[in-house]
Amino acid sequence: MSREKVVLAYSGGLDTSVILKWLDLKGYDVVAYVADLGQRDDFKAIEEKAYKSGAKEFYVVDLKDYFVRDFVFTAIKFNAMYEGRYLMGTSLARPVIAKGMVDIARKTGAKYIAHGATGKGNDQVRFELSAAALYPELKAIVPWRDPEFFNVIKGRKEAMDFAREHGIPVKATADKPWSSDENLMHISFEAGILEDPSMRPPKDMFELTIDPVDAPNEPEQIEIEFEKGAPVKVNGKAYSPAELLKVVNALGSKHGIGRVDMVESRYVGMKSRGVYETPGATILMAAHRDLEGLTLDGSLINLKDTLMPRFSHLVYAGYWFTHEMECLRTFLEKTQEFVTGKVRLELYKGNVYYIGRESEYSLYDKLVVSMDDDLGAYNQTDATGFIKLHALPIKAHAKRLAKFGKNIIG
Amino acid sequence: MSREKVVLAYSGGLDTSVILKWLDLKGYDVVAYVADLGQRDDFKAIEEKAYKSGAKEFYVVDLKDYFVRDFVFTAIKFNAMYEGRYLMGTSLARPVIAKGMVDIARKTGAKYIAHGATGKGNDQVRFELSAAALYPELKAIVPWRDPEFFNVIKGRKEAMDFAREHGIPVKATADKPWSSDENLMHISFEAGILEDPSMRPPKDMFELTIDPVDAPNEPEQIEIEFEKGAPVKVNGKAYSPAELLKVVNALGSKHGIGRVDMVESRYVGMKSRGVYETPGATILMAAHRDLEGLTLDGSLINLKDTLMPRFSHLVYAGYWFTHEMECLRTFLEKTQEFVTGKVRLELYKGNVYYIGRESEYSLYDKLVVSMDDDLGAYNQTDATGFIKLHALPIKAHAKRLAKFGKNIIG
Amino acid sequence: MSREKVVLAYSGGLDTSVILKWLDLKGYDVVAYVADLGQRDDFKAIEEKAYKSGAKEFYVVDLKDYFVRDFVFTAIKFNAMYEGRYLMGTSLARPVIAKGMVDIARKTGAKYIAHGATGKGNDQVRFELSAAALYPELKAIVPWRDPEFFNVIKGRKEAMDFAREHGIPVKATADKPWSSDENLMHISFEAGILEDPSMRPPKDMFELTIDPVDAPNEPEQIEIEFEKGAPVKVNGKAYSPAELLKVVNALGSKHGIGRVDMVESRYVGMKSRGVYETPGATILMAAHRDLEGLTLDGSLINLKDTLMPRFSHLVYAGYWFTHEMECLRTFLEKTQEFVTGKVRLELYKGNVYYIGRESEYSLYDKLVVSMDDDLGAYNQTDATGFIKLHALPIKAHAKRLAKFGKNIIG
Amino acid sequence: MSREKVVLAYSGGLDTSVILKWLDLKGYDVVAYVADLGQRDDFKAIEEKAYKSGAKEFYVVDLKDYFVRDFVFTAIKFNAMYEGRYLMGTSLARPVIAKGMVDIARKTGAKYIAHGATGKGNDQVRFELSAAALYPELKAIVPWRDPEFFNVIKGRKEAMDFAREHGIPVKATADKPWSSDENLMHISFEAGILEDPSMRPPKDMFELTIDPVDAPNEPEQIEIEFEKGAPVKVNGKAYSPAELLKVVNALGSKHGIGRVDMVESRYVGMKSRGVYETPGATILMAAHRDLEGLTLDGSLINLKDTLMPRFSHLVYAGYWFTHEMECLRTFLEKTQEFVTGKVRLELYKGNVYYIGRESEYSLYDKLVVSMDDDLGAYNQTDATGFIKLHALPIKAHAKRLAKFGKNIIG
Repeated sequence: MSREKVVLAYSGGLDTSVILKWLDLKGYDVVAYVADLGQRDDFKAIEEKAYKSGAKEFYVVDLKDYFVRDFVFTAIKFNAMYEGRYLMGTSLARPVIAKGMVDIARKTGAKYIAHGATGKGNDQVRFELSAAALYPELKAIVPWRDPEFFNVIKGRKEAMDFAREHGIPVKATADKPWSSDENLMHISFEAGILEDPSMRPPKDMFELTIDPVDAPNEPEQIEIEFEKGAPVKVNGKAYSPAELLKVVNALGSKHGIGRVDMVESRYVGMKSRGVYETPGATILMAAHRDLEGLTLDGSLINLKDTLMPRFSHLVYAGYWFTHEMECLRTFLEKTQEFVTGKVRLELYKGNVYYIGRESEYSLYDKLVVSMDDDLGAYNQTDATGFIKLHALPIKAHAKRLAKFGKNIIG
Repeated sequence: MSREKVVLAYSGGLDTSVILKWLDLKGYDVVAYVADLGQRDDFKAIEEKAYKSGAKEFYVVDLKDYFVRDFVFTAIKFNAMYEGRYLMGTSLARPVIAKGMVDIARKTGAKYIAHGATGKGNDQVRFELSAAALYPELKAIVPWRDPEFFNVIKGRKEAMDFAREHGIPVKATADKPWSSDENLMHISFEAGILEDPSMRPPKDMFELTIDPVDAPNEPEQIEIEFEKGAPVKVNGKAYSPAELLKVVNALGSKHGIGRVDMVESRYVGMKSRGVYETPGATILMAAHRDLEGLTLDGSLINLKDTLMPRFSHLVYAGYWFTHEMECLRTFLEKTQEFVTGKVRLELYKGNVYYIGRESEYSLYDKLVVSMDDDLGAYNQTDATGFIKLHALPIKAHAKRLAKFGKNIIG
Repeated sequence: MSREKVVLAYSGGLDTSVILKWLDLKGYDVVAYVADLGQRDDFKAIEEKAYKSGAKEFYVVDLKDYFVRDFVFTAIKFNAMYEGRYLMGTSLARPVIAKGMVDIARKTGAKYIAHGATGKGNDQVRFELSAAALYPELKAIVPWRDPEFFNVIKGRKEAMDFAREHGIPVKATADKPWSSDENLMHISFEAGILEDPSMRPPKDMFELTIDPVDAPNEPEQIEIEFEKGAPVKVNGKAYSPAELLKVVNALGSKHGIGRVDMVESRYVGMKSRGVYETPGATILMAAHRDLEGLTLDGSLINLKDTLMPRFSHLVYAGYWFTHEMECLRTFLEKTQEFVTGKVRLELYKGNVYYIGRESEYSLYDKLVVSMDDDLGAYNQTDATGFIKLHALPIKAHAKRLAKFGKNIIG
Repeated sequence: MSREKVVLAYSGGLDTSVILKWLDLKGYDVVAYVADLGQRDDFKAIEEKAYKSGAKEFYVVDLKDYFVRDFVFTAIKFNAMYEGRYLMGTSLARPVIAKGMVDIARKTGAKYIAHGATGKGNDQVRFELSAAALYPELKAIVPWRDPEFFNVIKGRKEAMDFAREHGIPVKATADKPWSSDENLMHISFEAGILEDPSMRPPKDMFELTIDPVDAPNEPEQIEIEFEKGAPVKVNGKAYSPAELLKVVNALGSKHGIGRVDMVESRYVGMKSRGVYETPGATILMAAHRDLEGLTLDGSLINLKDTLMPRFSHLVYAGYWFTHEMECLRTFLEKTQEFVTGKVRLELYKGNVYYIGRESEYSLYDKLVVSMDDDLGAYNQTDATGFIKLHALPIKAHAKRLAKFGKNIIG
């Protein structure tokens, strides 16, 4: 029987190299695929390692602008945070990787995809739901859920042995006592010593941001310009989405911005502890929120804030490529129609401070709000009727309580 | 005709002193009432000034514990922020003040209340809706919405003249070019030079927090302990609600924590710019959110986050004493049943960092989440079925798109 | 001083005729404007009466297709019901009337609009918020809120006297003991004898539908065809929006469909009792809901249902022409992308029964759902993993309860 | 090895009898358990069949009042409908059955439970999530997901053969071409000939309701009385929850009320077609909704309606015994505090018409709403201010559009 092709989401690490060889030994022609989402990797070295691990083909696909424009900036437009704090740098990257993987599958004629995500994590869900949407006939091979694999490659030791046995290059250096995942938006840390949520991660774990204690003693002022909710300029200079995020990342990195340490609820049902560094997107989201304060109607802000947790759940759980998400994104883009303008911020030792904001679409009207000037459209006595009508149902409730000798307060 | 009694929410400032006298001249017996919500005021001096301004009676009511326990801590339990940032220190105080005012009205037999809130702000709404709920028959006298008053007392100059003319003591010092409002939770600044949202407020405006640049160069670790969502101990020591907030305020103040500068949507329909310092509550809310991550089920976190904007709107707009709010608070208290435990934080130059958290009600299960150990309840292969069933509707959508030669991506 | 022009929303009834003349006497040139929304009126006679009442110009504008396509069908696409039952035939008509009124104001150069809505109802809000959005500089003259008017025209008797005095033709017949409002979507009844919500309206009040008791004893089957959520054909025949609604109205009318009697919460703060007849739209909404069951993903149905009360509130309260509504409508249209297909219904004595539905975009897959056939994409054993993972947080909660000797059931 | 005990949810039908014997042959001591939820069954005959099928113990547990009071009435209080139409008679019954099953497990010392739900349906999820919450250590044996079982008992024929072979009594009559499930709240039909959603079910399928065509030609008036949202009296007579539902069922049955035919979204990912008869609960929910119109504040109705789809999802998907559901129910009960009063309805050929409603907690105030009388608390001119303030953000939006030559309409 002829060998079937499988596209493997390959990182160049020990795990996916072992998986690559294992697939090869199982009789698949492995197409090693690397999504370039801005991680600081040597793609040349990865390619070499892929071939040494048995790959038949190798592709690295630059998805940075697609990732930043369609995913990172969309999340920023929604001020999206999962469970109040996580900006979802990993969650947003997964459908992008899956999209690239599916494209390579179509291009190479592969009918299988494989990935190295574990059976306990969210990433497997995100990869496979995305692939289901983009190419429903593709079959997923998931070694970490296959007893044939995980009963043999039980841990790091067995993986090292397997690698040595099959000529896969192995790093001499010891592994870090946690696992991490990086892209242009963030780096995440989990597992290992982080599995005790009462213990603080070591200072040397952090990679993308300086410790705020060591950050510059001088605040730095910056200006972000938005167009329809998407950041387009930094300090007056225009950039492509990926370039812009890089520039703001550098600013956030320098000032120690965007560290988060939290216990979160995985979609697969368990609590886990994650630590994140998201320097640039943290700044951009703060700026975006501020500009919305100036340009969005209050009731619409309320509606967006109400829908944000649902959007975040969909992103976190892997439902990017769904009709529901398309509908929410269509809504979102419409809300951003007037979110155009500039926000000035100050960066200082982990903080992002607001300094000022302006927009030609501003809803702020100094004449109306001013306490000194009543030339505006606003007549102070109008408030009387406003309050009286809003008080009507409140009084109706108070009166029925009174009928029974009760009061709104216990 | 005998003189009617009116309870005036009195601050001791120029405006409410002028109003006091004006009411007196209009033929009312004025009961001056001060709510002690922890503002740094000299109540003795205020009393004196009240009587000099024509008051017949004077009451200062200590509402600090009521304010902190029932209002501030409730908002913290909901992780409540209006429009993403405002912790609502003023909004939460208004119904408390109204409650005290209504109690004084009942006690003194007054049928009228009066306040010095302007006709363009939220406070008038909050006062009057609260009073409508608590004592619907009370009538509100609002000089700033009464042309008879505001056509005479047009601005600061006229108020000063009126004061001098009627023997009301007047401060010699010049007024600050903004207005402020303070209580144990926060201080707010608005109006005056702040009315240009593109300009940064002056450094010397801030009162409750040190400038982060001048804050200690050493981070400080603290521990907050919660019981059913309410903070009860700081660094192992138990406090009453108001005392606890004072202690944490001091910590936040020292480290420059809790400054916010934003454009917000007033309930009365206009955009306004507010600057806030909320040192202690900012720390407590951060800690509370963290503990919820450990002790609340993910779907319940999502539900709380979804309802938070509605709760915040109700608080902001003055709907505290309503049946809807009671229903939301009943829900909220039930969610906090297991939010008991400790959170360790680090305070440093405006930042609140998470260090660790623990709870006897923790939902975190190291055995389940660990990648190394499969003795837990979790079988990795279970994820396959989980994903397949969740992929089912996604594939159904993909297939109907395919029927028409379409794909989920445009 | 030259006379200013005012556009009056004119119905031809006693009230707006009196208002017309009153405006004329006040010194305005009145442009009488009638929106043709399908009410059963003699526009020729209305025109005559307008001129007799003092109008300088008269316009009747056919807005039927605009009304049905953009408003009625939009509400149907959202399955919109206010407080669970009201299909909002009046609420949807008001912004349409306002749009026509504003257009006439621009055309005639009028700077004023006037309407005959009372100061206690929702319609004044809907008219004026719509006008504020469409032509913010227009000023509204509202006689029923003007003491100069309502202190003179206190009731029907005074209106009749005024009419006779000024040569306004007056109907000899007695007035009905309720007020009503009609358009192509519905007729509403309120006030008068209906103000006692414990009393049933008289049988002869109903105008658009036969009493179900008198409806045909034979059920009638019909088929409605939708395209992207909008009904386009009835029994295989295509119609324009307004024509289609007329055809379905006739069907509903004949079978006594669409009567509602309820106590509702007015936006202006009070409870009121309304009775409605909405024959066609009731049928169309039932059919639409059914087709969505076949063509929309479950999670998207849930999202739509969750947003529906907010949409309905916005419609009911007069917020049609707002950015928030535009955002919701953009979302809505995206959801309807695949709501194309046919629904067969049976109409019988007030009921609408579902008989069958089909769509080329159907998400229903007999192969998957069938209990006999397992050739589908679905492996029954997959459910085990699905359930186990979803049970994980439930078990974590049960276990922490057990630690304290508790159980999920009290 | 000694035999382990398993509690089997037993119906007396062919499938669970075969499962019973199969478990017996597998080496389990089977405790046959029947939940009496009001299905029209001969429990004596079922007991006999259980023993003939190999049961060691048999229990029938009367759960009718628990079911109706805690589940059916809770759903009614929420006006809960899944996907707009399904009242969830089956979804609500499953956690009740699970509760009884778990109780029997504790009582008999069984460590296993078993049920006859298929691997494609919702019921398996509802049973197992409920059991996970109530007794997390219990293990579920699910023959329809066990290849050892379903590869042998492939369909009805094999089940019949197996039954005959093992002395299980078999009905001579042919099976109906659909499956059904009944309890005091409803009967559901699915599968078989119903699997074509474009075909109407046969007239003789319906069991609990008369065909509306054959229902009485005379309308019948009834009165339902509620206390805190729960129905307590019918036509002035008090009943226990289960008895009350029986009485109203009889009324609904007689008048052909409560038939629903729909395509719904199963939690396990597929669309299915269900037909339901829910006579009594349909009437009770209509009455309840009406009483809420009179006694609940509009904003609270809006909040309840917004949360209803989430509640319904939780019920439908089996999440009854969760902390989130407890929180929602706590909220719900608080909302019902004043939903006390009487609703009069008319039943006629499938319809439920509202006739009148009254409550000592009514928020309706005739004095306020009346157009003739202005003695109420409401001053018509107040509406001016109300509208002006609400128009403020609308005008701000219109003005910024105008700046760019745009208008809110296209």
